[in-house]
Amino acid sequence: MFTCELCSVGTELLLGDILNTNAQYLSRELAALGIAVLHQGTVGDNPQRLADELSASLKRSDIVILTGGLGPTADDITKEVCCELLGFQLVRDESILRSIAAHFQKRGSVMPASNLKQADVPASGTVFENTRGTAPGMALEKDGKCVILLPGPPKEMSAMFDISVRPFLLNKYADGVIVSRSIRTFGIGESAMAERIADMLDGENPTVAPYAKEGEALVRVTAKAESAEAAHALLAPVVSEITARLGEFVYGIDAGSLQETVVKLLLEKKLKAAFAESCTAGYVAKRLTEIPGASEVFDCGVVTYSNAMKVKLLGVSEQTLREHGAVSEQTAREMAEGVRAVSGADVGVSVTGVAGPGASEKKPAGLSYIGICGKEGTFAVRFETGREHDREYNRYVTSSKALDVLRRYINSL
Amino acid sequence: MFTCELCSVGTELLLGDILNTNAQYLSRELAALGIAVLHQGTVGDNPQRLADELSASLKRSDIVILTGGLGPTADDITKEVCCELLGFQLVRDESILRSIAAHFQKRGSVMPASNLKQADVPASGTVFENTRGTAPGMALEKDGKCVILLPGPPKEMSAMFDISVRPFLLNKYADGVIVSRSIRTFGIGESAMAERIADMLDGENPTVAPYAKEGEALVRVTAKAESAEAAHALLAPVVSEITARLGEFVYGIDAGSLQETVVKLLLEKKLKAAFAESCTAGYVAKRLTEIPGASEVFDCGVVTYSNAMKVKLLGVSEQTLREHGAVSEQTAREMAEGVRAVSGADVGVSVTGVAGPGASEKKPAGLSYIGICGKEGTFAVRFETGREHDREYNRYVTSSKALDVLRRYINSL
Repeated sequence: MFTCELCSVGTELLLGDILNTNAQYLSRELAALGIAVLHQGTVGDNPQRLADELSASLKRSDIVILTGGLGPTADDITKEVCCELLGFQLVRDESILRSIAAHFQKRGSVMPASNLKQADVPASGTVFENTRGTAPGMALEKDGKCVILLPGPPKEMSAMFDISVRPFLLNKYADGVIVSRSIRTFGIGESAMAERIADMLDGENPTVAPYAKEGEALVRVTAKAESAEAAHALLAPVVSEITARLGEFVYGIDAGSLQETVVKLLLEKKLKAAFAESCTAGYVAKRLTEIPGASEVFDCGVVTYSNAMKVKLLGVSEQTLREHGAVSEQTAREMAEGVRAVSGADVGVSVTGVAGPGASEKKPAGLSYIGICGKEGTFAVRFETGREHDREYNRYVTSSKALDVLRRYINSL
Repeated sequence: MFTCELCSVGTELLLGDILNTNAQYLSRELAALGIAVLHQGTVGDNPQRLADELSASLKRSDIVILTGGLGPTADDITKEVCCELLGFQLVRDESILRSIAAHFQKRGSVMPASNLKQADVPASGTVFENTRGTAPGMALEKDGKCVILLPGPPKEMSAMFDISVRPFLLNKYADGVIVSRSIRTFGIGESAMAERIADMLDGENPTVAPYAKEGEALVRVTAKAESAEAAHALLAPVVSEITARLGEFVYGIDAGSLQETVVKLLLEKKLKAAFAESCTAGYVAKRLTEIPGASEVFDCGVVTYSNAMKVKLLGVSEQTLREHGAVSEQTAREMAEGVRAVSGADVGVSVTGVAGPGASEKKPAGLSYIGICGKEGTFAVRFETGREHDREYNRYVTSSKALDVLRRYINSL
């Protein structure tokens, strides 16, 4: 197995001004190619420390990928330091120069003189075109080691990786094929999930690993083989066994998100949904409409934050609010019925709860009721996130629960 | 100036399964204490590589802070490796053991035997209590160097840093006081902003640095002095000069977000706002209600994704939609008037635009109109994000623009 190290260059990372998403992106992509990442390092815009880091990494690993420090200013030093350390000479490339000038022209401006140095590339290296910006990337190969330089801005870096670097690595370093599948669940905790598949967690190929994230749990199954087909053949029985054991909690395999699953199900069954939200206040609608094409299954939502608006816009009865409170099964039912009537949608979905901080009506933060009204009738479910002091978590996980209740309802039709 | 290095421990980081937010958090906090972070490193759950990384960091810097690998399982090795390398002996602490057991008891479960080792602490180190989990943190001091071990889960780590580690570092290492203030703007690009204050960017104390993030730009002004009062005295004239030069674009100084500023302004002027959203589909309502107390200024929102719902719920005229299209100044005005009438709020705010992918009605993705209707009348403004291929960016920045138009409107009253 080939080994790789990552080196992020930029004083702004050491000051904590920006989050290093490049390291995660590259690590994940390299794992998928079967290349092991042994170390991630970050140094500032300091030539000596960068040279030391690169030397140490080259001693340990086959490949070093650096991100950042390819910009036009004086403190962008990555290319110069790497070429000097490895003995590559920089020459100005006229065609890159023209494409950088064109980049500025398209934006109605003139290329500043400082950008000239971005057209300098190693005389004998591989150059990767930057389709999203001006700094080209490059690969310097020497003595069986490979140093790859990529721009720091995540969108430029990931586009360059996709278009140029992955094929480059696949061609020279990919060591078999690694394929992963993710079984995504909502409503079961990570440890309860792991218990159901405890006997499968020790497998070596495929490997089975549980993860938890923001109220959801997933199992990643990863196989390595000579070809993608062979890897999929190893995965298939394990994935179906796990899916069977986790049953109703599984909302998708390799699905992007709960909202993607719900949009797909609504499209399949040719249904439209409408939302009436209180504590989540637009979060469910916002998440559903993240998915391109959501307009085919979603016409409208109503955010009724106050009791008065629940009465006025959704027709919730004042008596219900008085007797049971806004956070109750009864109110959730009437909100779902109200939004279905107002919108003319096939399914009305409601959310009413306590996001916190502070409990209301003697109800704890994190408690909510989700209502569903379809042509078969109306029901509501009670839900608790179990966290009293995390408003954003409660709002997010409650909106996930609403999507999951809707998913289960559509599946039951 | 004291120097520090960070070391994150965990194979899940090298696989790209999780994003390293701890490195950013600690870097920012250390910068605020006047401690320079020279290097960030990440290694897997591998004793030899961890020992090598720690040795290299200790040669270069005064302080090394490690996060992760303090859990109960066999692959959690940080404490054992550090104590062995530095020659500290581990002893079981009965009071920590009791508090770990209590942690489980509170959740209605029994402590697994594997958690026993979390009660092992160095005989002569400083122990930091974990108020959010079971693994205590610790500081090992030897030969003028200090190694600090913190748990990996970000919420446990940041709580421990706040409560125990910051005071520990302040006491031993803080080298003067560093105070930063952020001048936050919306509607001006980073480079246009930097141009207006170009002559101030070379200052040494305070330093002035421009940043850009998701459609916003901010200037951070940082001063170093013997006391907080002295630092603030250095900051004040610079902050007010920059604020004056950036004028109407400034939405807050040290303000958390546009939505926080808007909620504060609405509270001050005792106004209620209601939102009618199309392309942002609940994003504005969701962001406003992130702020605790938003219920005092916000009763309701309406998400009208389809034209039919714009007519039915908001009373937009069919003729307007036919003649001008859903994404038009006229529709934005009628949506704002409609939601104000429906809700009885003081201000109606509307958003209608093209999030993408793909243009609609011959209008480019990223184009939107924001409408405002108050008791003085109605107006709408045209906005373009300038990005045609980034649905999430367009939705986010368009919701920011709606909040900013509302902010400017309230300020004009």
